[in-house]
Order: sequence, then structure tokens, then C-alpha cells
Amino acid sequence: MSMKWTSVLLLIHLSCYFSSGSCGKVLVWPTEYSHWLNMKTILDELVQRGHEVTVLASSASILVDPNKTSAIKFEVYPTSLTKDDFESIFVTLINRWLYDLPKYTFLSYFSQAQEIFWEFTDYIRNLCKDVVLNKTLMTKLQESRFDIVLADALCPCGRPTSLLETMGKAEMWLIRTYWDFTFPHPFLPNFDFVGGLHCKPAKPLLKEMEDFVQSSGENGVVVFSLGSMVSSLTEERTNVIASALAQVPQKVIWRFDGKKPHTLGPNTRLYKWIPQNDLLGHPKTKAFITHGGTNDIYEAIYHGVPMVGIPLFADQLDNIAHMKAKGAAVKVDWITMSSTDLSGALKTVIDNPIYKENVMKLSRIHHNQPVKPLDRAVFWIEFVMRHKGARHLRVAAHDLTWFQYHSLDVIGFLLACVVTVIFIITKCCLFCFRKYAKPGKKGKRD
Amino acid sequence: MSMKWTSVLLLIHLSCYFSSGSCGKVLVWPTEYSHWLNMKTILDELVQRGHEVTVLASSASILVDPNKTSAIKFEVYPTSLTKDDFESIFVTLINRWLYDLPKYTFLSYFSQAQEIFWEFTDYIRNLCKDVVLNKTLMTKLQESRFDIVLADALCPCGRPTSLLETMGKAEMWLIRTYWDFTFPHPFLPNFDFVGGLHCKPAKPLLKEMEDFVQSSGENGVVVFSLGSMVSSLTEERTNVIASALAQVPQKVIWRFDGKKPHTLGPNTRLYKWIPQNDLLGHPKTKAFITHGGTNDIYEAIYHGVPMVGIPLFADQLDNIAHMKAKGAAVKVDWITMSSTDLSGALKTVIDNPIYKENVMKLSRIHHNQPVKPLDRAVFWIEFVMRHKGARHLRVAAHDLTWFQYHSLDVIGFLLACVVTVIFIITKCCLFCFRKYAKPGKKGKRD
Repeated sequence: MSMKWTSVLLLIHLSCYFSSGSCGKVLVWPTEYSHWLNMKTILDELVQRGHEVTVLASSASILVDPNKTSAIKFEVYPTSLTKDDFESIFVTLINRWLYDLPKYTFLSYFSQAQEIFWEFTDYIRNLCKDVVLNKTLMTKLQESRFDIVLADALCPCGRPTSLLETMGKAEMWLIRTYWDFTFPHPFLPNFDFVGGLHCKPAKPLLKEMEDFVQSSGENGVVVFSLGSMVSSLTEERTNVIASALAQVPQKVIWRFDGKKPHTLGPNTRLYKWIPQNDLLGHPKTKAFITHGGTNDIYEAIYHGVPMVGIPLFADQLDNIAHMKAKGAAVKVDWITMSSTDLSGALKTVIDNPIYKENVMKLSRIHHNQPVKPLDRAVFWIEFVMRHKGARHLRVAAHDLTWFQYHSLDVIGFLLACVVTVIFIITKCCLFCFRKYAKPGKKGKRD
Repeated sequence: MSMKWTSVLLLIHLSCYFSSGSCGKVLVWPTEYSHWLNMKTILDELVQRGHEVTVLASSASILVDPNKTSAIKFEVYPTSLTKDDFESIFVTLINRWLYDLPKYTFLSYFSQAQEIFWEFTDYIRNLCKDVVLNKTLMTKLQESRFDIVLADALCPCGRPTSLLETMGKAEMWLIRTYWDFTFPHPFLPNFDFVGGLHCKPAKPLLKEMEDFVQSSGENGVVVFSLGSMVSSLTEERTNVIASALAQVPQKVIWRFDGKKPHTLGPNTRLYKWIPQNDLLGHPKTKAFITHGGTNDIYEAIYHGVPMVGIPLFADQLDNIAHMKAKGAAVKVDWITMSSTDLSGALKTVIDNPIYKENVMKLSRIHHNQPVKPLDRAVFWIEFVMRHKGARHLRVAAHDLTWFQYHSLDVIGFLLACVVTVIFIITKCCLFCFRKYAKPGKKGKRD
């Protein structure tokens, strides 16, 4: 069974105490950026339902905003890094992935990608040490008697581990996809597919943006974002994109934080931040240019907007490949694309109605589920708290070694039996042969 | 992946026409007895929601009651058998299973069981021929433009088929179990586990029965039924059971249609029919003696009643083994049990509180699902009608041959490549060796 490495949240039941009724104590080991978006949606809902939610966040974490009050409690632990250090680590890693990796040959690409991944896990391990070796914090956490740990499996905390080992330990897995996005495959009973749990109906836009959208007339608008993790693009790539956008009859809303490209057309407006969900849900929106983050793709599926994918790193290539295979997106290559490639791709998804039809099919699948993804996620978290786990959903295979799993011990034992029987029969035959055949020979000699 | 052969209902999308809104046309290919109980629960709900339901039933079918009016439409087709023939076929088959099979040795048991199964499928095939060769009926069905076929996979209708082939054809599988009953295992996205969909809260008993139940005082009552398919027991077995029941302090309500056993105790009352669900939901009920039909076990789980299992045939042995493994039942052997065995088993499940605790655990799992089983069953039927199938849940493996499924074609091709390369390299080496090594030897000779 294959599983996307960035697509999982997991639940682990912790304590033996659970206050009756609906109120539980939730401890969260989060991941930053887009994963935090999903996690926060769940946590907000848990808080709404009266649960006490505590997020373990380092002092360098960007998910803690000291200017905002929140019903979610942040347990901030000290770490040697600052917020700026943290952001610079990520920007460096991502820039290496974006600009350096594509220069390598096929074989060294994977060793280099692996190296980037090790640096990332090193950073996570250090954060983890800051928690585990902090005795005051650990005592406080232990005394808090939490009912559940909600952890993002992208950043496991405990010594080096394998996906298999982690899988066996979690009570329940909440997967960040659904069958609108991923291809059908077998799965285990303690998996629930809650992709798109953060999606919601669009709210009205602010007047300035609404006026710009309405000015597009019949042609409509294109929404363009490369996500929250990419802040800088080379000037050359920026100008290629800007001149491509200038060639389409639509108005374009581009989330962009950098120097204004000189090829920018009058139809394109730059914004440091955009209300992406509200824009994708706007009836004037014709297409979405995206890097292919899981959350972004889900917003497009939810609102039924065809996509042009410019995958950059991590699972984005895989995500866009899924959307392409389902006929809801056209992919362009980040490094090699020309202005014509991008504008051509945009025209294709807007002018060929099959892309809209296909993404609308996915949208109907997404909206037609027995229970909404967020409600299912919250249901299983409450289930694990209420029932002190979900052991009835856990396959016994987790407790088997690989040779037991493949029944090699049974096969080995049966083979040994067969070999023993054959050995004994052969020995008996030989014995009989010697005993009765030799006198015969002697007789002949006589 | 193993799957119980009696545990499935399947949905096949049929026509290209589907009237908008919630009203669809449903054609049903049913199975009699306990399977019909699940099917009818679903059909009643579909009719309630405004769908038009047509059940294909033979003139010998016992599921059609001409004295009852029903919102379900029965399309009765003529068959050469009468209702009495039908019942006698089943009674004979089951009696052979009950009384003849246990006399066989280990190896001939399976060939005899297979023979019984072939006779059953022969009977089903004949019914199927009566439908397919009936041109008037077939034309009428085709003209009705149904949106969906709801079929019980126990009785497939088309030439001989395999479970794998049938699995590939159905849009959706509704499995008659859930994780309270079965052990966790991997499954496919177009499986939904709707076991216990027929269960509902208990209604009050009729006065006569309620008075008898109340007369049990602190000891409570035991409910005893061997299901709808077993109508006759040998006198010897009946007396063993009756004298066992006479030994327990509880009052016993026994569903029994036969000659009153002479060992019957004053604590036991015989009824030709009992309101089983209402009795199991009664607070005085302490235990349930059951043959282990899936539906019966689900009623016990739903109401949290520990069981004594007397499995008779088909999947009942497997079902009781599940309940025994989950600590909710004690099993006694139908053929060899003595009065003491049965009364001992009954005392164990009543007096040892662990059985009640375990079945209550299962009950809590059953009642704690994001959506009730019946609602999920109806949801997926409506989904298949509304979306003209559920292709997004269908694994591509169904379209692969066995050697493609195991990637043998890919492995074969790669092996061929490797062999070719090795062959060429070897030939080159040999060629070089001959060309350059021979002159060297000559030189030495010189």
C-alpha cells in the first residue's frame, strides 16, 4: 500500500483518565505552514465543542501569533533558534529544492533530495530534544493528563522510526485526501480520508477586489498563487510568468511578494495576500494557477475550478499528476516553461470545456459524502478519547514480524515436517532394501 | 483479503436515465430467509424516501406474502416449483447439513458440503433461467429503465462466475458486518460495512410475555432461538436442550415449533414465534442462546446481551468463533453437547461478568459510528443512482490480469533486458578474449 508522506495526521490515545461527557484534553504536536492549516481547522472545531486544546510550539514557531488571542492554548517551549532563523532555514531548504535540485542528473537528484530531507529531519529532531530534555515542561505535560495526542506524521518526535512502526502505534489515521483526489486503493479500518476538511463556502470579497473581478466581464478571472512557502522567485521566471499572464483575455489576481516584474500586463494585479477560498468560489473565476499544494487543490475541487499546475517540490508533482490524470489540470514545467507554454495551458483549461466538466465531477464526489470531512475528523478524535483508543480497528499484522506476516514460520514448519517425513521414509526404504536385498544377492552368489 | 461468502449485498448501476431529484427506480434480485430481512429493511427505507422498488420473485418464493399489502412492488415470475417444493428443498438441504455432514470424516466433509452447495446453486440457476428465458418479463424489465440493481451476492444470476469477477462488476459493496463483529483487515474504497442495519430499539412486549418475563424476578430471562431456517430437531436433541434449560434459575423463552419435549422444565415456555429484538432489548434479558446467524448476533450486540452459541451450518460456525474470540460468547457443539454442557455454558455467560462487559464493549462500538448503518446503505444506493455509478471508488486492479496484477509482465521485461545485456557482454568478452588472448599464447610458443 502506498501512502503520501505528507498526507497524514494521526491520533494516539494517551491517558487512562477521561472526564465523562464531551470535554477532553487534547495535546497537539503540529507541523508548520500548510499542514498547520488543516490541524488548526480541526482544533478550532474541537475548541468549539468544549475540548481543551494545547499546542506544543517552539519559541521559533511561526504558527504562534502573539498578537492574536486564541481559544487554543499554546505551550511555548524555548529553543535556541529565533523565528527569523526558522524562516531562513525553510527558505534555504526550499530554494535548494527549487533551483539546485533540477540541475542534478537523475541519480544524484535523489541523493540530493534525500540530503535536504535529512537536514529537515535534523531540525525536527532538535526541536524534539528541546521538548524531551526540558524536565519542567515534561513534568507539566505529564501532570496535565491529556486524553489524546494529535500529531502530524510528517514530523515524528521519538528516535529514528519507520512509517510502518509509526502506523502500528497510532490509534487512528486521518488522511489529508479523499477519492476525489487520490486513486482508489486498499486501506485499513483505522484510516479515514478527510481531505478538504478546511474548505468552506466563499465569503464576499472586499470592494476593491470585487470591482476588479467584475471588470473582467464575460472573460472572468484567473487566480494565481504558489502557496505560502515560496516567497521569492528569480526575476527571469517572474517576467516569463508576467508576460504569459499579459497574453490572456482574463483579469488575473496574482499572490506575489516581490519586485514588480516589468512585463506585467494591465490585466494582472499583484497582492501580497489573497482570500484564495473566496476567490476560487467566485462565479467569475475561470481557472487557478497553482503549485499543487494539497490544500490548494482541495479548494479548487471544492469550488470546481480547473487548474494549471506548476509543481515546485515535495508532493506537489504527485498532486498535479493526479489532477492531470483526472482531466482537471494541465501541467507546465517550472524550470523550462516559456510564456507561450503557460498562456497556452491557461487557454486550454479555460476554452476546452472538458476540464471544467472533469473538475465539476470531482467537486460532486467531494460534496457527496455521508459525513463532511471535518465532522468525521472530529468524530474520530472524540471516539478515541471516549473509548480510550480504537483497538477494534487495528489490524493484528502490526504485531507480526515480517516473516510471520508472510506466514514464513508456518511454511517453514510445514516444510520441515515434509522433509522429516521424506527423510524417515527414505531411511526406512534404504534399511529394508539393505536387509532384504543383500541376502538375495548372497543367494545368487551361492 | 478474506470475505465471508454470505455477507454481501451489491449494487450495480444499470441505465443511462435517471430522473432528477430523489426518485429512482430500483430492481432487486433477492435471497430468501435472513438475507431478505436485511434487504427488506433497506427497501422499506428506499420506499419511504420516494424511490420505486421492484423485487423479482419467483412464484415459489416465500418472501412474497399475498396476504400483506406492501409499498414494495413484487414482479412475480412463473417457475415450475411450488412454495411447498421450495421449502422442502431447503429443509432437506439443511437437514443434510445438520445431521449427515457431521458423520463424515474430515476429508469427505468438504466434498459433501460442496455437493450441498452445488445443489443450492443448481436451484438458483434454474430460477435465473426462468427469468432470462422469459421474453415477456425481460422486455418489461428492459422497458422499465431501472436506475440500479440491488443484488444479493449469495445468489448470483449470469453463467458460472467467481467472487473476483463479481467483485469487479459491482459499483458498491454493502457488507453485512462491521468492526464490532469482524476482525480488522484491509478493504477497498467501494466497500461499506453496514452490519446490524436492521437493528432498532426494543418495543414493549405483549402482556402475556411481559408477565412471564417479570415473573423471573432478579434472575432474569434467557432468550433461545435457532433461527428461521431450522424447523425440526430430533427428539433426543430437543430433550437434551429442554433438560439443560430446566437446570438454570432463569426463566427461558424458547422459539420452538415441534412436539413438546418431555424434559421441559416449568421455567421454560415454548413459542412458535418470538419478538426477538424486543426480548433482547428487555432489561430482564440475561443471555441469548443462538445458532449464530449474522442478524441474530447483531441484535445481541445492539442490545448488549452475552451469547451461548450453538452453530449449525454455513457461516454460523465462523460467526460464533468471532464472538467467542471477542469474549462475548461461549460455544457448545450441536451434536455432542450434553445437558450439563449447555446449562454450564449458560451459567458461565450469565455469572461471569466479563461476558457482559465484552458484549457491552461491542455494543458501544456498534452505536458509535459517524452514520448509522441503514443510512449509509441508503446513501450509497442513492449515490450510485445519482452519479450513474461510483467509478471513483473502483480499484484499477479489477482490469488487470493476474500476471499484470503481480507485475510479472514488468518483471519479465526487465529480466529479459538484463539477460540480453549479460548475453551481449559475455559474447563481447569472449570475442575479445579470443582475438587478443590467442596471439599471446602464440607469442609464448615462439
